[in-house]
Amino acid sequence: VILTVTLNLALDVTYHVPGVAWRAANRVARVDAHAGGKGVNVARVLQALGLEAVVTGLAGGPTGEAVRADLAAAGLSDALAGIAADTRRTLTVADGADATGFWEPGPRVTEAEWRGFAGAFAALLRGAEAVVLSGSLPDGVPPDAYATLCRDAAAAGVPAILDASGDALTRGVEGGPAIVKPNADELAEATGGAAATGGPPRTGGAALLAAAARLRRAGAGAVVASLGSAGVVAVAGEGRWRARPPEEVRGNPTGAGDAVVAALAAGLVAGTPWPERLADAVALSAAAVHAPVAGRFDAAAYARYRTGTRVERLD
Amino acid sequence: VILTVTLNLALDVTYHVPGVAWRAANRVARVDAHAGGKGVNVARVLQALGLEAVVTGLAGGPTGEAVRADLAAAGLSDALAGIAADTRRTLTVADGADATGFWEPGPRVTEAEWRGFAGAFAALLRGAEAVVLSGSLPDGVPPDAYATLCRDAAAAGVPAILDASGDALTRGVEGGPAIVKPNADELAEATGGAAATGGPPRTGGAALLAAAARLRRAGAGAVVASLGSAGVVAVAGEGRWRARPPEEVRGNPTGAGDAVVAALAAGLVAGTPWPERLADAVALSAAAVHAPVAGRFDAAAYARYRTGTRVERLD
Repeated sequence: VILTVTLNLALDVTYHVPGVAWRAANRVARVDAHAGGKGVNVARVLQALGLEAVVTGLAGGPTGEAVRADLAAAGLSDALAGIAADTRRTLTVADGADATGFWEPGPRVTEAEWRGFAGAFAALLRGAEAVVLSGSLPDGVPPDAYATLCRDAAAAGVPAILDASGDALTRGVEGGPAIVKPNADELAEATGGAAATGGPPRTGGAALLAAAARLRRAGAGAVVASLGSAGVVAVAGEGRWRARPPEEVRGNPTGAGDAVVAALAAGLVAGTPWPERLADAVALSAAAVHAPVAGRFDAAAYARYRTGTRVERLD
Repeated sequence: VILTVTLNLALDVTYHVPGVAWRAANRVARVDAHAGGKGVNVARVLQALGLEAVVTGLAGGPTGEAVRADLAAAGLSDALAGIAADTRRTLTVADGADATGFWEPGPRVTEAEWRGFAGAFAALLRGAEAVVLSGSLPDGVPPDAYATLCRDAAAAGVPAILDASGDALTRGVEGGPAIVKPNADELAEATGGAAATGGPPRTGGAALLAAAARLRRAGAGAVVASLGSAGVVAVAGEGRWRARPPEEVRGNPTGAGDAVVAALAAGLVAGTPWPERLADAVALSAAAVHAPVAGRFDAAAYARYRTGTRVERLD
């Protein structure tokens, strides 16, 4: 079982409209609503890969109920802890050609609710082979939350993968996650790289490798930086690699990073060597770009990209 | 007790944003959510007038739960019947200067759910002095639903006020409501007036009086047409009147019609003569235009407008 943690999960709602009359009233033709948040997307991808995933995190109010109902409908195991405040929604207004997003602020979590979650998390670790910690921290959750959870996981012998940004990432690595998965911007921000180089180290050059090494010194076992259509770069104790997709991939980039995390978690559990694990991650990410919604991927595209992905050792 | 019926009620949600970046992602600064729908607005106004209102209608799913919670928070009695489908939301994106609305389609109601509601309605009539039937019919509710409810009310000796449009209005009057409250467009549409005259009879001339007389022949006891800033025109068995506010009123017209209905219901229960009842309706409606949200009114403005409203007998 792979446990995915989404502390700030969401109900992802899409309003389909034939066209939008701004500053007027619009009739919505169709409403789609699904459990969302990075860890939920990771769990969906793991499930599609044939692996067992358990979703945990914090959910509350009527929107939290809707999230739970959608997880149940998707056949995903729900080990969410309750909070009093209502779970947030993300709203996308899609008119066929374009999309406008509205992100609600997250709920406020009380100290008691956070302590309750941390206790339940320790119990959930007992059955887990790996744990994935994804996304932002809601108000009220301490900034070192991911460090705490990583330490609990390490104490239970469960490797953790951390996908976060800003403070949640920089504080989180102190807990010693097995892998952290920043994108180029997040890596630069976490290590001061953007300020030092005048921009994020997008192309995987020396600045990116240096930034990744800095995150490892701060506590991360390995760093896998996702670089969009340029693939991924991994800096681990075993070596450094770059993996690239065979071609430029166009489509919906939402969820591509979650597919990378899912592949890394699957590879960690299976003990797949780094080069294969990274090829899986790049191919699955590219296949996710082909799918219209986060948490899905195009299986035929996955197989095709897997064959064409090249992995290069950097030392 | 005045019973207000809203078959297609809603959770009215407002996203406050500092500005909207269309075709991009926007962070919502604040989310407001309140029970909405015309009958709910009428109940809020009645409550503010010191009268007891009971809200009934159909509510379901997590959004229905949110509606019930907001009614409870407002101290409004909730006699809603449950449905399996989720209650709709209306979303307003407000950026301080402008607003864009998105109206979700209503839930689908099953035949058994509709029959269950009709049975519960008959029981609720026993304690009611008047009943208000407001707004559109959700999918699955028969087009003659308001006629059925009006007949039940008449059989129980409870006068009904109907505020609907289109088929729901034309079929509904057949049930013999004591008062129907169309606006000029709705009255024209219901009686073919727009086609006959080339436009709705906005100003209360002969075409409007003829259209109102036609609705009375179809079954309505009295017709009160709301004409926005031109006030109201009433055609009843006791006579015909026009009531006008003392000045042009500017503000938020949402809920102005619901305030008219609330005043008519209050007047019906108190046995207030038509001229006073209409002056109350016009003043309360104008005071509602001063309030930022539907279901509220400015009490000082109400008193001021009440003094200045002129009522004129038309025969």
